[in-house]
Amino acid sequence: MTPKRTKPAQTPALDVSKELRIQKISAGTVVDHITAGYALAVLQILGITGANGEVVSIAMNVQSQKLGKMDVSKVEGRELTSDEINRIAMVAPNATINIIRNYEVHQKQRITVPDHVEGIVRCANPSCITNRERGITSRFAVVERTPVTLRCNYCQRVTSHDNIIAQLLGKSQQLAQQ
Amino acid sequence: MTPKRTKPAQTPALDVSKELRIQKISAGTVVDHITAGYALAVLQILGITGANGEVVSIAMNVQSQKLGKMDVSKVEGRELTSDEINRIAMVAPNATINIIRNYEVHQKQRITVPDHVEGIVRCANPSCITNRERGITSRFAVVERTPVTLRCNYCQRVTSHDNIIAQLLGKSQQLAQQ
Repeated sequence: MTPKRTKPAQTPALDVSKELRIQKISAGTVVDHITAGYALAVLQILGITGANGEVVSIAMNVQSQKLGKMDVSKVEGRELTSDEINRIAMVAPNATINIIRNYEVHQKQRITVPDHVEGIVRCANPSCITNRERGITSRFAVVERTPVTLRCNYCQRVTSHDNIIAQLLGKSQQLAQQ
Repeated sequence: MTPKRTKPAQTPALDVSKELRIQKISAGTVVDHITAGYALAVLQILGITGANGEVVSIAMNVQSQKLGKMDVSKVEGRELTSDEINRIAMVAPNATINIIRNYEVHQKQRITVPDHVEGIVRCANPSCITNRERGITSRFAVVERTPVTLRCNYCQRVTSHDNIIAQLLGKSQQLAQQ
């Protein structure tokens, strides 16, 4: 018998050095072309922490043919709602939403930032009527798309991208690019 | 010639439906066998948000032969310090650290939770001398390993796993499994 060679540094089950293959998903959503550095923000918008068993993978700052660098996020067993997609558009205006069913791309949707935004974020002006009175939905014109910047229809105050990010991610979060 | 079948919903560049291959890393660290649901906690301990261009990928709640479900985190161009590994041990006591150099696993290290922990977290008892006087390093005996629970060497107060998580992730974070 030849002596058994020991390979203490390698495991046969998963050669992590070469490639990390993330398992196929049979159904779910792939969000790609996320603005580089914003994948965690997308997870946060979707309320995904991993704590509830969600099968999710993300890649940050990987090469993209179109965008230079981008992030990708892949969520199993969940198709995003239009409200979720609208919120993602605020942080990742160039993203693409791929709905997967039965291992195939069932639908591919380029995110579009609309001309007007309603109710997703609050106006940056604390004195704005939309912040002072209940039952009034915020309404903005989109003044810039990359990054998204909004002007209030009521008080004309501009809500900056940083402010939008802070609102969508929760005040305490610093995941956004500063 | 047979007619070409059109597949309008598919992009030739990246067939995201089938598999998301995360690019090889030439150098860096793969943390695998992370307790399921804690990959984002590991990123947070490492201060990784993606905003600084870090090339990082994670997979959450994927199947593992050993653990049932696990998380994996892959960080390019960075070898973790022993202090970082010690902090990861508090949230992912069964993790394995793979140092990658030149596309190969240079070193594989199973995380071990030590018998005693110094200075990584604070004692849960606000009146403990380690919290009241400066220059005294916290010291704990490990009373449980999965999940990690600590007993203070000074006041004997037990610091719970939830408290440890909250400290390591910042008070406002709720990424931990509750």
